[in-house]
Amino acid sequence: MDLRKLLKPRTVAIVGASEKAGFGGDTTRNYLKFSGNLDHLYLVNPGREEIFGHKAYHSLSEIEGDVDLVILCTPQKTILSLLREAAGKNCGGAVVFASGYSETGAEGKELQRELVREADRLGIAVMGPNCAGFANFIDGIFAFAFLVEERDRSGNIGMISQSGQIVLGGLDSPNMGFSHVISSGNSCNVKVEDYLDFLVEDEDTKVVAAYIEGVSKPEKLVETFRKAAIKKKPVVVLKTGRSGKAQELAKSHTGSLSGADKVLRAVFKRYGVIEARDLEELCGLAAAFSWLEELPKGERCVFMNVSGGEAGVMADLTDEFGIRLAEYHPETKAYLQTLVPDYGSVNNPFDMTAGIGYNTPVMVRAMEAISKDDHVDAICIAYTITPEIWDDTISHMVEAVSIAKENPDMKPVFWIPFIEHTRHQASADILQKAGVPLLPSGRYGCRILKQVLDFANFEYQDTEAAVPERTHGPSQGLSEYESLNYLKAHGVTIPPQAVAATADEAVKAAGNLGYPLSVKIHSADIQHKSDVGGVKLNIRDEAELRLAFETVMDNCRKNAPDAKLEGVLLKPMLKAGVEMIIGVNNDKDFGPMIMVGMGGVFVELFKDVQLAPAPLTREQAKKMLESLNSYPLLNGYRGNPVCDKEALADMLVSISEMAAKGKDSIKELDINPVFVTEEGVAIADALLVQYID
Amino acid sequence: MDLRKLLKPRTVAIVGASEKAGFGGDTTRNYLKFSGNLDHLYLVNPGREEIFGHKAYHSLSEIEGDVDLVILCTPQKTILSLLREAAGKNCGGAVVFASGYSETGAEGKELQRELVREADRLGIAVMGPNCAGFANFIDGIFAFAFLVEERDRSGNIGMISQSGQIVLGGLDSPNMGFSHVISSGNSCNVKVEDYLDFLVEDEDTKVVAAYIEGVSKPEKLVETFRKAAIKKKPVVVLKTGRSGKAQELAKSHTGSLSGADKVLRAVFKRYGVIEARDLEELCGLAAAFSWLEELPKGERCVFMNVSGGEAGVMADLTDEFGIRLAEYHPETKAYLQTLVPDYGSVNNPFDMTAGIGYNTPVMVRAMEAISKDDHVDAICIAYTITPEIWDDTISHMVEAVSIAKENPDMKPVFWIPFIEHTRHQASADILQKAGVPLLPSGRYGCRILKQVLDFANFEYQDTEAAVPERTHGPSQGLSEYESLNYLKAHGVTIPPQAVAATADEAVKAAGNLGYPLSVKIHSADIQHKSDVGGVKLNIRDEAELRLAFETVMDNCRKNAPDAKLEGVLLKPMLKAGVEMIIGVNNDKDFGPMIMVGMGGVFVELFKDVQLAPAPLTREQAKKMLESLNSYPLLNGYRGNPVCDKEALADMLVSISEMAAKGKDSIKELDINPVFVTEEGVAIADALLVQYID
Repeated sequence: MDLRKLLKPRTVAIVGASEKAGFGGDTTRNYLKFSGNLDHLYLVNPGREEIFGHKAYHSLSEIEGDVDLVILCTPQKTILSLLREAAGKNCGGAVVFASGYSETGAEGKELQRELVREADRLGIAVMGPNCAGFANFIDGIFAFAFLVEERDRSGNIGMISQSGQIVLGGLDSPNMGFSHVISSGNSCNVKVEDYLDFLVEDEDTKVVAAYIEGVSKPEKLVETFRKAAIKKKPVVVLKTGRSGKAQELAKSHTGSLSGADKVLRAVFKRYGVIEARDLEELCGLAAAFSWLEELPKGERCVFMNVSGGEAGVMADLTDEFGIRLAEYHPETKAYLQTLVPDYGSVNNPFDMTAGIGYNTPVMVRAMEAISKDDHVDAICIAYTITPEIWDDTISHMVEAVSIAKENPDMKPVFWIPFIEHTRHQASADILQKAGVPLLPSGRYGCRILKQVLDFANFEYQDTEAAVPERTHGPSQGLSEYESLNYLKAHGVTIPPQAVAATADEAVKAAGNLGYPLSVKIHSADIQHKSDVGGVKLNIRDEAELRLAFETVMDNCRKNAPDAKLEGVLLKPMLKAGVEMIIGVNNDKDFGPMIMVGMGGVFVELFKDVQLAPAPLTREQAKKMLESLNSYPLLNGYRGNPVCDKEALADMLVSISEMAAKGKDSIKELDINPVFVTEEGVAIADALLVQYID
Repeated sequence: MDLRKLLKPRTVAIVGASEKAGFGGDTTRNYLKFSGNLDHLYLVNPGREEIFGHKAYHSLSEIEGDVDLVILCTPQKTILSLLREAAGKNCGGAVVFASGYSETGAEGKELQRELVREADRLGIAVMGPNCAGFANFIDGIFAFAFLVEERDRSGNIGMISQSGQIVLGGLDSPNMGFSHVISSGNSCNVKVEDYLDFLVEDEDTKVVAAYIEGVSKPEKLVETFRKAAIKKKPVVVLKTGRSGKAQELAKSHTGSLSGADKVLRAVFKRYGVIEARDLEELCGLAAAFSWLEELPKGERCVFMNVSGGEAGVMADLTDEFGIRLAEYHPETKAYLQTLVPDYGSVNNPFDMTAGIGYNTPVMVRAMEAISKDDHVDAICIAYTITPEIWDDTISHMVEAVSIAKENPDMKPVFWIPFIEHTRHQASADILQKAGVPLLPSGRYGCRILKQVLDFANFEYQDTEAAVPERTHGPSQGLSEYESLNYLKAHGVTIPPQAVAATADEAVKAAGNLGYPLSVKIHSADIQHKSDVGGVKLNIRDEAELRLAFETVMDNCRKNAPDAKLEGVLLKPMLKAGVEMIIGVNNDKDFGPMIMVGMGGVFVELFKDVQLAPAPLTREQAKKMLESLNSYPLLNGYRGNPVCDKEALADMLVSISEMAAKGKDSIKELDINPVFVTEEGVAIADALLVQYID
């Protein structure tokens, strides 16, 4: 659906325009107050001739010419007929503030379905219902129902939120300047994903900030993220639902069904989407990208302080948040040493002392020397800007930063205060003008800096997403033998194996496989083979094999009387190694997700697994392994041999490619364990579940 | 040393008082500006008759009567003679701003030692050198060198910091009201621990906030913490040095040697000392305790929001920070349901909707109903107070909270905003007056709330600390047999064991112990027995035993030719179980620390260990076990039997008591592993290292 008439209309009508408090009056007041140009605006109210000195129309039909957008400030029961009337004016967009739809219960849900049907039929893109509307600061369109203080809020942040209050939070933040602000409400025939796509495409939007409660168009979402990744446009998302409680609340709030959260997070990671965990992070990240003129070219930072104590605090924080501290070039260090008193030492974090921090020209020289150092990618000033005390130190430092940034070669500079309410507005304005993001305090600031650095250094590897094309039905598991053969047929290396219906066949097969062997029951009906006595390990010769065959078959006949037994599965005993697990889970929204982790209790107690959408590139597979806490076990831990991680990465890639191709046939795959040794990888057990059609 | 003349003097002289900028002038100006009473103050300057209209003395000697405190604003080289002169006026305290002491190098360190010697000889408690001084807001004493904006800062927070800048950060924070503020600088003959003790004892101080870089009087520190724990006075500490980098910086900053950080953290935990990780947490925690009228009586909170989106964000944050959400009594829920619109649902976090949030009397009723619910211990309003928009919603809510708190039965109430710079001062003042802490935003606020709740619910168990009395010298390891016997002699249960010098003796001992057995070399000189072929397991009969005896002895003769071999150690094979490790490490400052964790790779890769000072009560021991991530493995994981955790806790207690008693003889103990099964605990190997004296 084309959103241009909704979000960038040439003509706009406020239906229910008024001078009174409430949706009609507040929207009218906002529009008149904030929009520089009112030529395109019609006010509609059947009972008024004039509103705030502007002509009022009695109905939409009375307006001559087309109306691209109608802002409906009227109650729910008027909406459908107004939409029909609007359609007669070639309307393509409507904002519906009214509530009482899907957020209320069964009846409301039916009303919303009816609204969607009618809007689709009329070709009108509807924002809402139950929304706060939007503001387009580029074209001066203010379809926004909540009053906010008069102030220039224009800028380059495009914000979309499923919660009106959260939009207000953003609008109230003096550091945020917007291209577009959208409160989508219940989402009717235009979804959050559509707005996101609009903002990613929009040339006036430098950074996209989104609050989302759920996903309804996963394919569109992924395609939008992919576009943003290719453009390297930062998309910051706050998604509630990390906890079960929040998922429950989102459902009752806008009727959204929260997507599987870990899966969504893996999707974010794939496309470099930046995750905020609360409002402070959402606004702080958006403002940082908005203010920054240019992304850092690497991740090595120098921190400049004017207190030994604060330098210590910053050292702990950078360590905790994984921010890489630059090592100065010896020349830089020697030069800086000339700027501080004898007892001062040049560290990183760097306690500049009064010698530098209280002296503008000297601080400019220090920043220039640090910026010129090719071991340094960014500079961060860590100092509290109090609103109360605009003292010499701070004004010197802000001035120095502002002068230093006039040098076109100056590397990106950030500012992190230590204590809250540090938006001394005059300082903030100077820093913003200089392109120096003033981040939130302490830990917030550090995490935001780290995320900006990560985004700057993120290299997107474009692969085609494997989002399923349809809803899948019932499924069925394969036997271990069939599962392994399926893997083999799709290019995944498996150890030799054979099935045997009789003891004689088993002995014959053993001749090819070699002893020692494992013997397991071969039956698609038995998934937990050990539980029914269906496994014998370390079979060393023919006699043991014959005995094992009979024992396994007897046990299973007795313990699983309904299972169809096809004989036994024979495999050479594998060399034990590090036990890993590999899994595939086909998410209904985002398709097959590849999981890898250390086997056994590691997975469950320490949640030490990595998840990523299929397919994987080799580099992505390696990065997953390296991100495991237990990675050292693969890498020559305590004098053990270094495992063949390349082979494991290859296997992950093959499995992920198989899973991507099988997005409409594979439900899940559980490889548990796969042994990794210095000689390679060997799958010890596998279970594949397929959709039946 | 008595600090009363230093911190609560009856008469004060500023030496080097002046009208010019600099230490002398700034201190004089501050004193005159902030102190209500100047009768006790003498200004001393040899070259002036009058300073800011007050009489100036040419020297200390010229003053009639005693001078309790001298504030020395003069250069380093004048200090010693001034101290001597002050001693003649019965002086008992001095503030030394001058730098150039231990922070500068070898020469400065010697100057500081000389200063300490002289101050001790004269009986003068010296603050500094290289410090910013102190302010006593209770008695109006302002020995503070840095200029701060004029504003009433008096209150009940006692702050002590080794960094002057961090004191300034606290003073600049408009939410902080102080009893005392102390910048200790280099610490000379008065240490951070002494100031802490003063503040813990001080009746005007309700909460103590400390920034420390290092510990120099561990015994005093522990005793002070213990006093605070018994009084239940909150002590909030920001200690840098979690990272190696910060430890390095602290050393160069005030010459402090950072204590072993994990040990200090374990000590904090023992006494309920609250740890801040940066300045925002330090100030936020101090202000929270300062404003709060009464601690919550439990940990169950209700969160009140006016937005579904923000309620979702809060649900995720409470989950992440482990804040327990109250379950309403059904009556409360039913009542609240009558206050919200039909579509609103009563959850926790509770989206009050406009029905409650925009209506003062209704919100008061809602808060009263929630407060009366005996499933609820505290209420937290989560809403952003912007400085720009003091709109109806917020003023209604602040008003409602303020009215609700007039009810003497109202449970503790907190306020967490979502976005920074939310110190709308008029709101903050109303909330402070109502005893409702206005916490920093989002994640900071949640962590602070959690720490306040933890402190409120912390029950201190008084035990005598085992701080060592002397510096220990060289040490020596015992053999496994001796180590185990040492444990046994100190009340720790060990499995049966025997040593045998010959094969015949071994066979005889085996008769008592029973087969199967393990055979290990018995020698205090061999610590890694397996490495030299000194271990044989699963010995099933006499023949195997004789062979094992000879093999082990031969291997060791060959592979450890210099070791004195005393024969072999025989032990019955233990039933394998969950492998745990228990360790004791005798910290040079804080004495024996007990460590417990899951054995093997868990400890190293997942850092899944708990540490606590010896001795342990049974409850403390159990809490340590329960705090392990791997605790489920002891507790019937995946259908395994439930291990005998009681026996394990008992063993921890016995070992901790042994370690506390042995604080001047045991250097370390390494029990690795101890097997825990449903039947009990069994130590499989132990190594004790003792000091030799």
